[in-house]
Amino acid sequence: MKKRFIMAPGPVSVAPEVLLKMAEPMMHHRSPQFSAILTEVRENLKYLYQTDNDVLIFASSGTGGMEASVTNLLSRGDKAVVVRGGKFGERWAEICEAYGVVPINIDVEWGEAVDPAEVQRVLDANPDAKAVFVQAHETSTGVKHPVQELGEMLKGRDAILVVDAISAVGVYDLKTDEWGLDVVVTGSQKSLSLPPGLAMVSVSEKAWRMAESSNLPKYYFNFLKERKAIAKETTAYTPAVSLIIGLREVLAAIREQGLEALFAHHRRLSDATKAGVEAMGLRLFSKAPSEAITVIEAPDGVNGQDVVKILREEYGITIAGGQAQLKGRIFRISHMGHLSDWDMIVALAAVERALGALGHAVEPGAGVAAAQRVFAGA
Amino acid sequence: MKKRFIMAPGPVSVAPEVLLKMAEPMMHHRSPQFSAILTEVRENLKYLYQTDNDVLIFASSGTGGMEASVTNLLSRGDKAVVVRGGKFGERWAEICEAYGVVPINIDVEWGEAVDPAEVQRVLDANPDAKAVFVQAHETSTGVKHPVQELGEMLKGRDAILVVDAISAVGVYDLKTDEWGLDVVVTGSQKSLSLPPGLAMVSVSEKAWRMAESSNLPKYYFNFLKERKAIAKETTAYTPAVSLIIGLREVLAAIREQGLEALFAHHRRLSDATKAGVEAMGLRLFSKAPSEAITVIEAPDGVNGQDVVKILREEYGITIAGGQAQLKGRIFRISHMGHLSDWDMIVALAAVERALGALGHAVEPGAGVAAAQRVFAGA
Repeated sequence: MKKRFIMAPGPVSVAPEVLLKMAEPMMHHRSPQFSAILTEVRENLKYLYQTDNDVLIFASSGTGGMEASVTNLLSRGDKAVVVRGGKFGERWAEICEAYGVVPINIDVEWGEAVDPAEVQRVLDANPDAKAVFVQAHETSTGVKHPVQELGEMLKGRDAILVVDAISAVGVYDLKTDEWGLDVVVTGSQKSLSLPPGLAMVSVSEKAWRMAESSNLPKYYFNFLKERKAIAKETTAYTPAVSLIIGLREVLAAIREQGLEALFAHHRRLSDATKAGVEAMGLRLFSKAPSEAITVIEAPDGVNGQDVVKILREEYGITIAGGQAQLKGRIFRISHMGHLSDWDMIVALAAVERALGALGHAVEPGAGVAAAQRVFAGA
Repeated sequence: MKKRFIMAPGPVSVAPEVLLKMAEPMMHHRSPQFSAILTEVRENLKYLYQTDNDVLIFASSGTGGMEASVTNLLSRGDKAVVVRGGKFGERWAEICEAYGVVPINIDVEWGEAVDPAEVQRVLDANPDAKAVFVQAHETSTGVKHPVQELGEMLKGRDAILVVDAISAVGVYDLKTDEWGLDVVVTGSQKSLSLPPGLAMVSVSEKAWRMAESSNLPKYYFNFLKERKAIAKETTAYTPAVSLIIGLREVLAAIREQGLEALFAHHRRLSDATKAGVEAMGLRLFSKAPSEAITVIEAPDGVNGQDVVKILREEYGITIAGGQAQLKGRIFRISHMGHLSDWDMIVALAAVERALGALGHAVEPGAGVAAAQRVFAGA
């Protein structure tokens, strides 16, 4: 029974108390007992999202929530501006193409954030674009895109702003209503510290109006049906009951602690980890770093995948490597999940030791010491 | 802490041992450890399905698996024969319509099975139909449709047979390959005795050929992408990790015990319950009853919903009422889930008592006695 740690950006560590709640006897999804839970969860999701909009819940991974946000809002032949600065930006474009929506892609160098002026230029050149698709946080690169600016930009326009915030909601301050984020997607296996299997999507009034005229085909992921189901305190199709029980627990804890405390927690882990990484002489990959993850460039002569492999196989610690063009070039440590200061100390110590084993000597304790100083000063 | 029972046809009772396995620490979905689990699960799913075909796994409810079986196999304007004899038959037609597939509906009286000769006639009249959509077991009515005959009928034709077997796989003998069932859908929250959140779909070679030319839009539910992912021992999108851990446990137990024992278990519970119901002077609703559930007509003067309500609120026992046009007219007891003889005794005793409370006197113990005799003789 090797002691294991999971510090990848999803699936994440889940609190044992929550796992045990999810292990309680199954309940029926069409029962007053479960309806009361759904109602509580929906209310607390609005708190988490900082919104008065409905937040829909689907049994699927986050990608299902992204697909739903294309098929329920747009119509055949619609143009949509897509910010493509990583694997998940590419996914928006792929989903659009799969359904006959024409993506106008803004390609952003992986590791950089989109320039709002560029979005403005593309929107001005395409006044008939119906939506802007973007990541709040691009999990593949660790970049935060400026969704607040984009929200302000779209307030006076007909187009809606659709935000993949799968690794952003609950991580850092994201003001859905105040910033004008029309549609915001998240998943259970990120800051909510649950197993994967739930996607959640908030929908603004402006977006509901588009949903009412959308003609793209859909069935399982159906916003209008889910809105009707909310009125009846149920879901359109059988929900993932055990995950929703877990969601209830986590949201109740978040509500008690307050959003500010949750954001401060992620910031604290992120600041200390980033300081530790730099103190080891390593470079951060992201030019607009997030509090969700720390993305580290593999030093010269080291393959990032080898760092991940040593941590997993020798130390029992799961972090993540790079995806697609970044494979081998980076490795990623999550600050999302049921984690504390001590996990970051472990991660930094493990990276130090792995780099040494790979021939890239690091002063023992250098990263940990820097993190300790940040924790002490915070 | 009231003692509770769940005997509805999904969500079902889950074994505490399985719930605790699912409560073990989260693991990463892209790890050799999880790949090994996926491979074992996929192998055991083939055993459960009695097939050599690939069995795909999706994070969604069963409806997602049904939608996937339309969008991945057919093309715009295709005709498909749909057996519509209940709420789930209607769902096939609705999904087809949502995606521009033309359903040729065979409307069957709710409670009756489709006549294979009628399907033959409709197929002969529509030789260009690309598929037949049917339920192996229609959960809303408790009817088994003759899918073996339909499979034989389609063997010499181009059309494929797509079977919603959500409440049939693992319940009774369903020979996917031998009978020529091209596509078979199931879900986690029925005979597999797991929480809801997983859909599984088997795909025959004949169906794969159609998948390769299908032009309906799809993204999250993508058969070809999942097939590629199988070759890499992974899934196209983040899987519902904890549910798959549960699936592994349940399938290992099924494999050890053998399919015959599993089918005999459901038959035993079903036979005893049906005998008990008839001994109470009640009528069975289904003309082609299944081993998955027992569907009971509410006696004159009794609303089936009231039976369900008394059981739930006063006795802590969840069974199901009727859906749509059957609301109030029937109530349904599940034989799927982590159940034994003794649960059926409880269900029958509870129904007896509830009917008495609703003014429909039943000889105390009559139903239970009949069930006891069946159990003794089995």
